[in-house]
Amino acid sequence: MPYIRITNDLPGISGLMVQRPDTAAPLNQLVETLLRAPNSLSPGERELIAAYTSDLNETPFCSGSHGAFAAAQLEGGHDLVKAVLHDPDEAPITPRLRALLRIAAEVRGPVSAVSPEAVAAARAEGADDDQIHDTVLIAAAFCMYNRYVSCLDTVLPADSSYYDEGARRIVERGYTGAR
Amino acid sequence: MPYIRITNDLPGISGLMVQRPDTAAPLNQLVETLLRAPNSLSPGERELIAAYTSDLNETPFCSGSHGAFAAAQLEGGHDLVKAVLHDPDEAPITPRLRALLRIAAEVRGPVSAVSPEAVAAARAEGADDDQIHDTVLIAAAFCMYNRYVSCLDTVLPADSSYYDEGARRIVERGYTGAR
Repeated sequence: MPYIRITNDLPGISGLMVQRPDTAAPLNQLVETLLRAPNSLSPGERELIAAYTSDLNETPFCSGSHGAFAAAQLEGGHDLVKAVLHDPDEAPITPRLRALLRIAAEVRGPVSAVSPEAVAAARAEGADDDQIHDTVLIAAAFCMYNRYVSCLDTVLPADSSYYDEGARRIVERGYTGAR
Repeated sequence: MPYIRITNDLPGISGLMVQRPDTAAPLNQLVETLLRAPNSLSPGERELIAAYTSDLNETPFCSGSHGAFAAAQLEGGHDLVKAVLHDPDEAPITPRLRALLRIAAEVRGPVSAVSPEAVAAARAEGADDDQIHDTVLIAAAFCMYNRYVSCLDTVLPADSSYYDEGARRIVERGYTGAR
């Protein structure tokens, strides 16, 4: 049960955002910029970085949501997302995306510089400054969103179809027009 | 040396923000909302939570900046900030703020629910839902800002007077009008 009173029946970050529209507005604007605005990586790739970070951070509301949003925008759908969360090294993704996921995994660990080896490996697969920047910032942002959801002990949806319904809204209308 | 090319001479997050105005805009809007918009805690108290979280996360650019911004807005100034970063239990702050800093310390640890004991202790000192929410979200947000600054290996200012100059700008104009 959440540590603060939520006067709506929405799970995870959705309940917090309806409860606190003042902080929801910039949080939604940030995730819209990071995951949907024109960028060096496709929306599906960025949702996958968000889902993978959230899975490593053991925040099922966020990994379920962004996994569904990734599945809705990537060829391979839910099977691909499942394979990436299980083991990016074995998943059928590009070597460049695999190298970026390794950077994301380092970012969600202790707060320190990413290893030079992880950055060099991403560059060797063709990643440029913007892709490295965007990967680091997406993974860092999910270190915030995951803690917001987990630390306040929010609830999970009763049914995992909730995530796929969310995916339809997000793909169609984005994060800032989702409700 | 930063992992991405920064074509300006600003340290820490400032260099990243000038380099990438697209992501700087929502990042500044978020920190303005969290630390300066009318809220359940004073701007000085909120800057102190940000500085304390950043210090625990060993990100000196952020603890130096937000420590200076807290000092500029709290009676006690730099001495008070130094005492809090050294040990909140011994620092001359209200029992309520001390209990909220304990929550912030838990948030910056592994991603999981804050302990019921920490929340109960804050409530016993008079903290309400909004103060608990805002403390959790500020600490979570600095788990993002700290990683953004540290993971990309940005540089520190040559001189720590940089932080006090920043404090004058922030107190006067806020984060969204800081330059």
